[in-house]
Order: sequence, then structure tokens, then C-alpha cells
Amino acid sequence: MKGRLKQQLDFLREIDKLKAIFRKTKLFDGSRFENDAEHSWTLAVMVVLLREYADFEVNLERTLLMVLMHDVVEVDAGDVFIYDAARADAHAKEEVAAARLYGLLPAEQGQWFIDLWHEFENRQTNEAKFAHAFDRLEPCLQNYWNGGGSWREHHITRAQVEAKNSVILEGAPRLWTFLQGLLDECEARGDFG
Amino acid sequence: MKGRLKQQLDFLREIDKLKAIFRKTKLFDGSRFENDAEHSWTLAVMVVLLREYADFEVNLERTLLMVLMHDVVEVDAGDVFIYDAARADAHAKEEVAAARLYGLLPAEQGQWFIDLWHEFENRQTNEAKFAHAFDRLEPCLQNYWNGGGSWREHHITRAQVEAKNSVILEGAPRLWTFLQGLLDECEARGDFG
Repeated sequence: MKGRLKQQLDFLREIDKLKAIFRKTKLFDGSRFENDAEHSWTLAVMVVLLREYADFEVNLERTLLMVLMHDVVEVDAGDVFIYDAARADAHAKEEVAAARLYGLLPAEQGQWFIDLWHEFENRQTNEAKFAHAFDRLEPCLQNYWNGGGSWREHHITRAQVEAKNSVILEGAPRLWTFLQGLLDECEARGDFG
Repeated sequence: MKGRLKQQLDFLREIDKLKAIFRKTKLFDGSRFENDAEHSWTLAVMVVLLREYADFEVNLERTLLMVLMHDVVEVDAGDVFIYDAARADAHAKEEVAAARLYGLLPAEQGQWFIDLWHEFENRQTNEAKFAHAFDRLEPCLQNYWNGGGSWREHHITRAQVEAKNSVILEGAPRLWTFLQGLLDECEARGDFG
């Protein structure tokens, strides 16, 4: 193996490590924590399944590309709980990770992926906003179906949940409205801290 | 939760079970068997990363949709080893599975997904051919990087591997040529039955 294809397959092999990076929320059936590769697949499925909830023009292909690749940096930077104070420091580590990981690829292709990831992170385009809505909605559904899940475990308040997940309002307003009903149910059963 | 969105989320929750359907090949690092959700994510990444190996016009979005959803039927039908004689009977079971699983969705959306899956299975369109190439190439890479993997374990011959994987020649001829070199290495180290 050599040359350009070897670089691409080295990258593929390296990012396979996302299958050992575990998140703070469990699968919908509560059986175990979810890993980043599974999470990325579920977001892509949600984008396809729920595309009708985009209230603005969205390029489906670009949105899929973003959700498929959005967590690649966590191979090096790890998964930081969204409610963790360390989250504020995560970005610098993730930039270093992006440089190393995408640096495994042929230069122009690596840059293309870094630009795609920055587009996701910057949340300025319609596609990035729509992608973010699912990145936040999925763990909410997991916690809803798992009796409070990581909210209950870490004593997260409803106000914290609403503050961190308001990107859903930005990216998919009707799903945000729907989520309020689920949060009401969670509050009634005492899931929040 | 009720109505159309409830149907869509019931479906999403049901197909999450792919995360507990294990394949016959191991992750690239050999640490454990891969599940269907992880496999589907890796195929999608391969389609993006290796799209330049399409030797005909390919719609990237449609190809991604196919690889993301191609194994959904295995929630009910399970994963059958490609070299297993039972593989010949798998199709009828998978059609029953598709009817039940996609039947959870609003009718027109369910039919859309069934049509997408049939397009993949029938391997007539460029996108279906390209998608199949990765569905076969991924386990070959896993076995190459894992000292023979499922080929060695189940005493599969090189002739069997070439016969089952000739869809790679159809969908991505340059990757098939590349694969021959890997199979030569595997043969030299005695991986085949």
C-alpha cells in the first residue's frame, strides 16, 4: 500500500477509534453508553428521516457530510460532557486534533474536511444549524427514553438543558416546540436536578 | 407524543437495535466485532473519502442514503455471513423485515425507504453499484488488518473471496485492482482456507 490511497486508508483506520470513544448518554434502550461512531450514524439517519422539519432551504448532502464527520476530532480530544465546565477549553484541543487527524490525508482533501468541520462548528450556514439541531436532539431523546439519563445522573436542571439546547430552536423550531412537551414530562417525573 | 412525528421517532428507536446486531468481522484494530450501526457509518465515511474512485457519474447524496439505511432490515433478519449457505434464504426474511420496520413510518415515507433499499439490493444504478463496492471492501480491509480475520477463522478460500467480492470490480474497478494486492499479501501469509 502506498501513495494517496494509503493516506486515505490510514485516516480511515485512525478514525475507526471513534468506536471506542463513549458519550455520556445511553442508547435508546438504555443498555449501555453510545459511542461516537454510532452517534454519528444516528444523526445522519435523523437528518434523512426528519428533513421535513427544516424551516429553511437545506442541502441534504452537505448536512449529512457534516454530521458524519463532526466528531472525528474526538479521537484525540475525547468526548466532553456538554454541561461540563471543561467544555470551554475543549475547542483549542479539538483544533490540534483536527490538524493531526486531517493531516493524515492528502493536503487538499484534509483541508476540505477541516473547512467542513469549521462550517459545522461556526453554525452560520443553514446546513450547520440544521445539523446542530440533531446533535442536541438525539441525547435529549435518549434521556427522555431513559428516565432522565445523564440529566438525572449529573443533577442537571431544566434551565441548563434549555440553555444548552436552544440551538435546536435555531435549527429546527418545530422540533424545539415538540421537545418542550418531552421536557414537561421529564419535569413531572422529577428527572431534573 | 403522537401523530406523524411519533411514528418517525418510533422507527428511529426501533432501528437503534442495529447497535446490537454484530457482524462477522472485527474493527480495524481487532478489538471486538463490529455492529451494523458502526458498519453503516464507516461505509458512509468511505463513500465521502473515496468518492474519487467512482469511474462513472455518481450522486453522492443518494449513495450516502443507501449505505446509511442498507442494513436496517437486519434488526429483524439478523446478519448472515456472506459465505454462509443460509445467505440464499436471507432475502425473503429481509423483505418481511422491511415491511414491518418501514411499516412503522407514515405510509409514503416508508415506501420511499423501501424503494431506496430495493435500489441498493438490485444493484442496477450507478449509486447502488458504488455503494456495494464499499459494503464489500470494508470487511476485506478489516480482515487484511486483522491477520485474515473471518477468512482465516472460517477457512474461506481466495477463490471464494474473489467470487463474493467481484461487485467491487463492478462498482469501483480501481479499488478492485488495489484489493488484489492486499489479497496477494494475505495469501503469502496463509490467511486463506
